Amino acid sequence: MTITRIGILGAGLMGGSIGLAARAEGIDVTIFDLNLDAASRAVVLGAADRVAADLAEACTPDTDIVFVAVPVSHVATAVAAALDAGAKVVTDVGSVKAPVVNAVLTARPEAAGRFVGGHPMAGSEQDGLDGAHAGLFQGATWVLTPTPFTDPEAFSTVRLAVAGFGAEVVAFDPIDHDALVAVVSHVPQLAATTLMDVAARRGEEEHGLLRLAAGGFRDMTRIAASHPAIWPDICVENRDAIIGALDNYVDALQSVRTLVAERDRDGLLALLTRARAARRNLPVGAAAAGPLVELRIPIPDRPGMLAEVTTLAGSLGINISDIETAHSTEGPYGVLILVVPAGDAERYETALRARDFHATRAPLT
Amino acid sequence: MTITRIGILGAGLMGGSIGLAARAEGIDVTIFDLNLDAASRAVVLGAADRVAADLAEACTPDTDIVFVAVPVSHVATAVAAALDAGAKVVTDVGSVKAPVVNAVLTARPEAAGRFVGGHPMAGSEQDGLDGAHAGLFQGATWVLTPTPFTDPEAFSTVRLAVAGFGAEVVAFDPIDHDALVAVVSHVPQLAATTLMDVAARRGEEEHGLLRLAAGGFRDMTRIAASHPAIWPDICVENRDAIIGALDNYVDALQSVRTLVAERDRDGLLALLTRARAARRNLPVGAAAAGPLVELRIPIPDRPGMLAEVTTLAGSLGINISDIETAHSTEGPYGVLILVVPAGDAERYETALRARDFHATRAPLT
Repeated sequence: MTITRIGILGAGLMGGSIGLAARAEGIDVTIFDLNLDAASRAVVLGAADRVAADLAEACTPDTDIVFVAVPVSHVATAVAAALDAGAKVVTDVGSVKAPVVNAVLTARPEAAGRFVGGHPMAGSEQDGLDGAHAGLFQGATWVLTPTPFTDPEAFSTVRLAVAGFGAEVVAFDPIDHDALVAVVSHVPQLAATTLMDVAARRGEEEHGLLRLAAGGFRDMTRIAASHPAIWPDICVENRDAIIGALDNYVDALQSVRTLVAERDRDGLLALLTRARAARRNLPVGAAAAGPLVELRIPIPDRPGMLAEVTTLAGSLGINISDIETAHSTEGPYGVLILVVPAGDAERYETALRARDFHATRAPLT
Repeated sequence: MTITRIGILGAGLMGGSIGLAARAEGIDVTIFDLNLDAASRAVVLGAADRVAADLAEACTPDTDIVFVAVPVSHVATAVAAALDAGAKVVTDVGSVKAPVVNAVLTARPEAAGRFVGGHPMAGSEQDGLDGAHAGLFQGATWVLTPTPFTDPEAFSTVRLAVAGFGAEVVAFDPIDHDALVAVVSHVPQLAATTLMDVAARRGEEEHGLLRLAAGGFRDMTRIAASHPAIWPDICVENRDAIIGALDNYVDALQSVRTLVAERDRDGLLALLTRARAARRNLPVGAAAAGPLVELRIPIPDRPGMLAEVTTLAGSLGINISDIETAHSTEGPYGVLILVVPAGDAERYETALRARDFHATRAPLT
């Protein structure tokens, strides 16, 4: 299939960037925002072809996907409204997934298969629409969070669209996603904000303090300058995972304090060396360059298999470079066709076998 | 005066960068390192004109300044040796100042006036000599830590040299310096290292974790990749200030935890908004662009005035763009001539008056 028409709900940084990226691909974009001025401005900036008069107008059945790009606390409501309006496939871009996925499943159990939770791991220090740009997702990881109820066609459609924006797709279970982003996104944000605030308060007494802030401090506090308005929602929605990750972080800092207090040079050096190696091994961008292979995985043609197979790849850190479902004409079995980086294939096949999925490799056509 | 010849003890990142910056200014550079290969390599890389056969050869009396760029725990010993060898002026580049300044005062009370503690707020993720470059100090803040015993001529010579490398000079009391760098440098380093380590350990169980690390996490953990070897020394030398700043940071994180646990959206938003404003106001680089003014400050011609007047500027975050001492020919009074950014002059004059120093402005000649 090809994506020819999308709807966007919410004309902010994410909605605007999706619109720009889509239009750069020749996709027709209709945008809706409760703030009509913002929606109109999106058209002026080239992020949409037209403004929808109401939500339904951005969710017509000839629209391939509706992207919900509203604040985290409003996502579930907007997704339900989009499904009610007849949208074929709905996805969102919120930073917290389990509460949204559960709310949609509870509110619209019959339509939830058409919703695929999503979270592009990209942002900007600039606020709203003015920070939007077509390249925001280029090389970024875009998480999708399928559930046992997710329609494989819907998943495949969303993957195709976001791959067109230059993102690499990784699938995670919604709860796993929330726990992991607490560690690598939410707690780092709070840690940067707190570091900046502590230094700024000290700087009120000691005006020379911030003159001593060199590149390292600047790097560490850069995200403290990001748009504050989204974070209270994220903290409330992902409260438990954030508290857990924050407690781990504080415990680790207390251990460091002990090393310093005890003048434990060896312990400090071991920690610093370990962290340095980890930082140097941090994957640069999301793109796993190099050749791809196609894996054909015979699966019972029943719900749940898509989520199991794709989130297994995600938990191993493996991109899904393409996905397609071939239904068998004879009997209840189908074949899930996944394209993954060649270098990851063996690791993935082994993990699949452990769950009794037997993949065969096929040459890429 | 002009600087024509310097000596450097220690052929690492700092020593190498000082050598490259000095030679770019046409200054003759002699380098010494216990590791003769490193010293020779500095010559090959253009960071020195020659290798000294021993420490004394880099500290001859026709050398204007000796820069001590050895690991923090060896600075005091190397400074004393340089003074013993007859160096006219000695400075260092260590990240912790009070222990070094006190050790030199104690070990060489009669020569301590020729030593000016220094700390350029610049670094590189790259190790040692290979990370060295002539532009490392361009636009950076270079702290000098005069004491009541510091010879004003020595201070003025060091200021002139480092200004030639493109750095802006700010003076701090050594103890104040150590307390402040704990807040803006040492604790941020430990916080980044800890954040990276916590994520990496979690990533060992959840291989997909680090795939979710986006730009914010990358920024925050960048300094975790810096050279680990210098940090155990810094932690030991600046132990008490680091523990104090770490405790403040952990307390602040606990307050954030409470805000999250109590779903206190308003409290979170207030914190994030405050930190954002502070981050946006963070001075970019050290250079205070714009016009300068000359302040002439009559002072009793006795030790201690230089440190008082210059560290007062530092505590207000004010650069010292030039400094000169004019000794009075009649009586015990002299005039300290300081050049500071015009926009800071009034604030500085007010603070000086509160300490009974009465500055007069003079046009810049």
